[in-house]
Amino acid sequence: MRTVSFENGKVVLIDQTKIPHEFELIKTDDIKRIWHAINIMEVRGAPAIGVTAAYGFAITASKSKALTINELISELEEAKDYLGTSRPTATNLFWALNEMMKAAIAYDGEDPKELAKFLIEKAHKMADDDVSINEKLAIYGDSLIKDGDTIHTHCNCGPLCAVDLGTAMAPVILAHQNGKKIHVFTDETRPRFQGAKLNAWELSNAGVPYTLIPDNSAAYVMSQKKVDMVMIGVDRVASNGDTAAKIGVYGVALLAKAHNIPFYAVSPKSTIDMSLLCGADIPIEERDPDEVRKVNGTYVTMPDANVLNYAFDVTPNELITAIITEDGIVYPPFKENLKKIMGE
Amino acid sequence: MRTVSFENGKVVLIDQTKIPHEFELIKTDDIKRIWHAINIMEVRGAPAIGVTAAYGFAITASKSKALTINELISELEEAKDYLGTSRPTATNLFWALNEMMKAAIAYDGEDPKELAKFLIEKAHKMADDDVSINEKLAIYGDSLIKDGDTIHTHCNCGPLCAVDLGTAMAPVILAHQNGKKIHVFTDETRPRFQGAKLNAWELSNAGVPYTLIPDNSAAYVMSQKKVDMVMIGVDRVASNGDTAAKIGVYGVALLAKAHNIPFYAVSPKSTIDMSLLCGADIPIEERDPDEVRKVNGTYVTMPDANVLNYAFDVTPNELITAIITEDGIVYPPFKENLKKIMGE
Repeated sequence: MRTVSFENGKVVLIDQTKIPHEFELIKTDDIKRIWHAINIMEVRGAPAIGVTAAYGFAITASKSKALTINELISELEEAKDYLGTSRPTATNLFWALNEMMKAAIAYDGEDPKELAKFLIEKAHKMADDDVSINEKLAIYGDSLIKDGDTIHTHCNCGPLCAVDLGTAMAPVILAHQNGKKIHVFTDETRPRFQGAKLNAWELSNAGVPYTLIPDNSAAYVMSQKKVDMVMIGVDRVASNGDTAAKIGVYGVALLAKAHNIPFYAVSPKSTIDMSLLCGADIPIEERDPDEVRKVNGTYVTMPDANVLNYAFDVTPNELITAIITEDGIVYPPFKENLKKIMGE
Repeated sequence: MRTVSFENGKVVLIDQTKIPHEFELIKTDDIKRIWHAINIMEVRGAPAIGVTAAYGFAITASKSKALTINELISELEEAKDYLGTSRPTATNLFWALNEMMKAAIAYDGEDPKELAKFLIEKAHKMADDDVSINEKLAIYGDSLIKDGDTIHTHCNCGPLCAVDLGTAMAPVILAHQNGKKIHVFTDETRPRFQGAKLNAWELSNAGVPYTLIPDNSAAYVMSQKKVDMVMIGVDRVASNGDTAAKIGVYGVALLAKAHNIPFYAVSPKSTIDMSLLCGADIPIEERDPDEVRKVNGTYVTMPDANVLNYAFDVTPNELITAIITEDGIVYPPFKENLKKIMGE
């Protein structure tokens, strides 16, 4: 099933905090519950967050008692601002909410009920588009993978990070389905273990040979094993190619450079934010220190340990070999070539 | 109290698997229990392991019913070989056992009971020497730390890793005691969390300002914060300066290089193994995959997830700014300068 779907007026989310031990669904039409699901990462991954927020926006319209379009638009402005505070870094969240808002404003009708239906359809289309974008990411990414290759990755970027298929793991799973003998090293990704909990589970489900390693083993694995490329999912790409992604990706990029391993960022165009000059302009979320202090509900360190818990970091463009988008593979110079692919 | 001590014929170990939540002692004169304590890392840290093994060796002599020196020597050969299998990488283990064996063979007497007493004294002396060596490491290391400096470290290398004082944290704690305003970033160090459990606890006890970070945050912290040096404890240094240390240190060294941050290895001379040409000759321990799969007794990933669990990695000499020993700070060229300091 899809990571994010819609049923009987409710958004349906696979609860990613329960995997791999349980498979539970969250079904809700409550915008506060949707905000919470994004905030505590029951749904995570840039594309999945975007579509979830779009459904939250459309559901707000469905449930509204507004009598005029203007009244509804003003409620939707509020919903957009509110949902936009659930996570600060992934640009897909803002992109999706802006797309929905633009559609609402451009809507040419007078019945708020009809606008609500139109917005649900718009959210469905966004979900379907996400899947077909990921199909294209898979094909472009797969073109870089040779039979026998070993791919290093970080965090989760398979089906669970998007509506379906995923970003950086979509090419890898396709390469496997195409009969290429590949192997994946997947970092466990502290503090939330998205690699250990989600990526290992998805690769295992897909039958892709993989090895799970602690984040700090990446350097030694690169020096001891044949690693042919790094392929990762990202959360926001600035117009110069600087890229915010899960905390640890910047380190992986430096290690890849030191071992002469190509580093590919897999990024739907909705993740590329041309309004930002460079990575220094990307806001970086810092999360609750208890995510680091506790595992499985039990403290590993002192309950009052001083902790810094960055959720993301920024990889400078010079460490990126290419950015794989649904419209093709973008190589440096990124400033110029991202402009072209974004049609600017 | 000391991490490793001796009382009423028994070795007394602080159980490092219980810190920071409980403070428990292991008191034993059973060589199998001592082997187990080293193997499951109730005692860990290169110098602490060495002295623990020396006590285990001496206790074997105390408990022996051998009637002749030759009989006892042959039992001690067996004990040495047995204790040597408890961990494969830290050279202090083999160094300490060899020192004890050499002393037993050189012993000039005929009474096995007297030899046993002599070996207990020899182990005490090794413990005392360890403390005074660490005092010197502290002084040399402190000479590199300026007021206002920020130090990055990995794993635990304070008092718990040795008999007392520690290796890489000894200079840091001394600098703090000398009134220098310093700050320490300490990696949590998966999979066993020695940074989160032990190093944060020791720094907090010593009143040193510190911040605990996930291993994968090191790169971003180096790019965002003022980090003046990396200082780490090590497990085996080859004659060319290549250095085995806790898994993740090689990555930290590469990240330090990329950010132009000096990288100091703090190493008592007993950790330097002049019999090895280079790092490729150092055996690297791989530990139970369940150390990665489970935290606090509960699985974070699937119980059958494919895992690679290196306990150590090797940092090539070109990434090391200097090696701090009890007899001075060794700079490159290491091949030449390690020979000099080791008196060869």
